[in-house]
Amino acid sequence: MIKTIAFDADDTLWHTQRLFELTTEKMVDLLSPYHEKDWIRRHLGEAEIRNLDIYGYGVKGFILSVVETAIELTEGRITGAEIEKIMVIGRRMLAEPIELLAGVQKTVQAVQGKATLMIVTKGDLLEQEEKVARSGLGDLFDYVEVLSKKNPENYLDLFHRYKIDPASFVMIGNSLRSDIIPVVQAGGKAIYIPQQNEWSHELVSDEEANRHHFITAKTISEVPSLLEQL
Amino acid sequence: MIKTIAFDADDTLWHTQRLFELTTEKMVDLLSPYHEKDWIRRHLGEAEIRNLDIYGYGVKGFILSVVETAIELTEGRITGAEIEKIMVIGRRMLAEPIELLAGVQKTVQAVQGKATLMIVTKGDLLEQEEKVARSGLGDLFDYVEVLSKKNPENYLDLFHRYKIDPASFVMIGNSLRSDIIPVVQAGGKAIYIPQQNEWSHELVSDEEANRHHFITAKTISEVPSLLEQL
Repeated sequence: MIKTIAFDADDTLWHTQRLFELTTEKMVDLLSPYHEKDWIRRHLGEAEIRNLDIYGYGVKGFILSVVETAIELTEGRITGAEIEKIMVIGRRMLAEPIELLAGVQKTVQAVQGKATLMIVTKGDLLEQEEKVARSGLGDLFDYVEVLSKKNPENYLDLFHRYKIDPASFVMIGNSLRSDIIPVVQAGGKAIYIPQQNEWSHELVSDEEANRHHFITAKTISEVPSLLEQL
Repeated sequence: MIKTIAFDADDTLWHTQRLFELTTEKMVDLLSPYHEKDWIRRHLGEAEIRNLDIYGYGVKGFILSVVETAIELTEGRITGAEIEKIMVIGRRMLAEPIELLAGVQKTVQAVQGKATLMIVTKGDLLEQEEKVARSGLGDLFDYVEVLSKKNPENYLDLFHRYKIDPASFVMIGNSLRSDIIPVVQAGGKAIYIPQQNEWSHELVSDEEANRHHFITAKTISEVPSLLEQL
């Protein structure tokens, strides 16, 4: 019996990855006088991953990683004026309009009243709260939880804080690594909705995925009927 | 009857402001070839406050504000090599050892078992979680909550999420603006422990403070006996 339905937010309720990809390309263009685009793209991606442990997920860490890469690739010769351009492009991300994925509003409305509804997202606290506000979806959910990372420990901590029986909890999301596997490991249920452009950092091998039990949906619109099978 | 005792963290459980002040002076020294120190200090402080709405509280926003100020005061002529120094100094803050205020460990141990114990801190999620971990205090508390800001709405949301009766909740902290007044406005109780070097942004006028009912403690060691009077 499902008592809590939790939705991931980024690339489950609204588009995020494509904004990061578009912005990354703007940054690469900006730095392209200094190096080949492929080189910049690769080094920037590496800096982002390397810095996750210290900066965490989100736009501020992304901006700092771009600045770091820009300094590295110019051996410190880049000017403040160019770095300002990076910061302006980065900051613009924080105010981008939220574009919901198809079927989101209807799906959430369809499950309202059937269980406690949560958004469980990882990333920067203020940034994620602001996105929930801009999405217009906030009122449809009972609770919004931002986690610094989505590992089994943090899901167990969530269950503890809300006094949730894991077996009565289902998480719906696009990331096997963040939304599905750790929830199953923590004793919960999960519905996986794959997205086309997934951040490579969120991918796991088929072998790893196959070791865990979860349901896969083609789109979020399938969720209400899948929930009845749980 | 108090059922939840919540402690603010920064400058209530451990020193924070003096680290920001020391780091600010390092940044000012670094930029002093370009302008008078007073001018830099003032502009940096203004950038920090101005950017709180977009970056929120914490070290990442602080680093970005210093970089922004450095670009502004050099009219974009500052080099990447110098900005790298800013980033290195800033990042070092994220790994600084945590220095507890006097009496903290004893006080928290003294109230253990008498109520649910929480840390309620504002700031960057990952950064605050890491500080709790480095402080060694984590196990003494039942819950750790990081809020993006401490306003009455966010305290009400906290009460909602934990099913807390506001009248049974007491918040202990060093900031009238963040720990005391909004809690009282949300129906809770509060114990104020003034600190010597308070960030100007956290100050409120005596007139504003006097409109609200709360208890003042000289040091955290007074808290256990004050709690018995509540």
